[in-house]
Amino acid sequence: MSHEQRQELIQALHQCMAACNQCFDACLKEDDVKMMAECIRLDRECADICNFLEQALARNTPFASELASVCATVCEACGNECKKHDHEHCQQCAEACFKCAEACRKLAA
Amino acid sequence: MSHEQRQELIQALHQCMAACNQCFDACLKEDDVKMMAECIRLDRECADICNFLEQALARNTPFASELASVCATVCEACGNECKKHDHEHCQQCAEACFKCAEACRKLAA
Amino acid sequence: MSHEQRQELIQALHQCMAACNQCFDACLKEDDVKMMAECIRLDRECADICNFLEQALARNTPFASELASVCATVCEACGNECKKHDHEHCQQCAEACFKCAEACRKLAA
Amino acid sequence: MSHEQRQELIQALHQCMAACNQCFDACLKEDDVKMMAECIRLDRECADICNFLEQALARNTPFASELASVCATVCEACGNECKKHDHEHCQQCAEACFKCAEACRKLAA
Repeated sequence: MSHEQRQELIQALHQCMAACNQCFDACLKEDDVKMMAECIRLDRECADICNFLEQALARNTPFASELASVCATVCEACGNECKKHDHEHCQQCAEACFKCAEACRKLAA
Repeated sequence: MSHEQRQELIQALHQCMAACNQCFDACLKEDDVKMMAECIRLDRECADICNFLEQALARNTPFASELASVCATVCEACGNECKKHDHEHCQQCAEACFKCAEACRKLAA
Repeated sequence: MSHEQRQELIQALHQCMAACNQCFDACLKEDDVKMMAECIRLDRECADICNFLEQALARNTPFASELASVCATVCEACGNECKKHDHEHCQQCAEACFKCAEACRKLAA
Repeated sequence: MSHEQRQELIQALHQCMAACNQCFDACLKEDDVKMMAECIRLDRECADICNFLEQALARNTPFASELASVCATVCEACGNECKKHDHEHCQQCAEACFKCAEACRKLAA
């Protein structure tokens, strides 16, 4: 992975973590929380693994590709759930998730 | 802190982390998720800081008392929210939170 | 995965996290820290992913098998490094790592 | 805390987490690892709490000021250790730590 690709991934992970946490927070304040339950669950899963991988990359982990592969799976699942909902925080989160999933797959390959 | 107190704290942190995560998972499956929104939020806060402190203690962190003081505050808040709800997972979580808060305060003192 | 296998895995993850953190702490106090550099690095990698997976299992993560697969790889690598060193903390850590790797592989399968 | 102060803090936490992880990685590759042992230990403490707080802020944690107070203490300690060493990664880390400690203290106040 080139230095540029690595920087691109770190930024994508960071934006995805932030978007997932904002979506988590906003979902808990929605009128229909029940409809958002799966979104809340996946936002947390996705924020946590993105956060984990970002720090692992920063310390030059020997397991970057294995972790990126899992992270891509989680980002994809979270993006698919978020894009079902019209809330702006969900749509923004879905976009960040799909972008991050793609960057992760490049590293995992 | 004696070795026994430290082991007691590690066990309390571990049980509190597990109870908060189980309560988080169960709250998301309840019929009235909206009523559980604050519980879901605090379960995550509490699970994360307990998990953090447990690992920090395992590596002999120099910041044990500062972290334990924050952890006590979070456990207390989570316990107070959980005890409002009759679900068994909430009542069990409240109990684990209060026990952990007390163990944290002993270390923080 | 049966309830018993899940409990066995959670315990293995917990003991591995604790052993890796104790080994990390002890390695940093050894006379020849340079010889322990890779052990220190892998102890952190392994403690962090075990800790992550343990909390993920407690919240009933949908990504248990993917995470367990990565965790098995990290535990195996950490165990292989630790077993090269005669220090008691390294030997104990190696044992916890191999046991955890095996439990992770059962779940990942 | 204003939106600008919050954004400034999030950026400071992020840069500090990255600098601490890079310093951790670089210290483990130095010739005299023993001299860097305390730096390695504090780099990890500091990276972990910065990473934790950054994610907590992103999800709008109710415990921002308590966490920022602990984080300031850890950043200050890590900065003080790092500035003792002439390596460029240590000097850069010290700078990131002190900047982050200051941003944390503003929030904690």
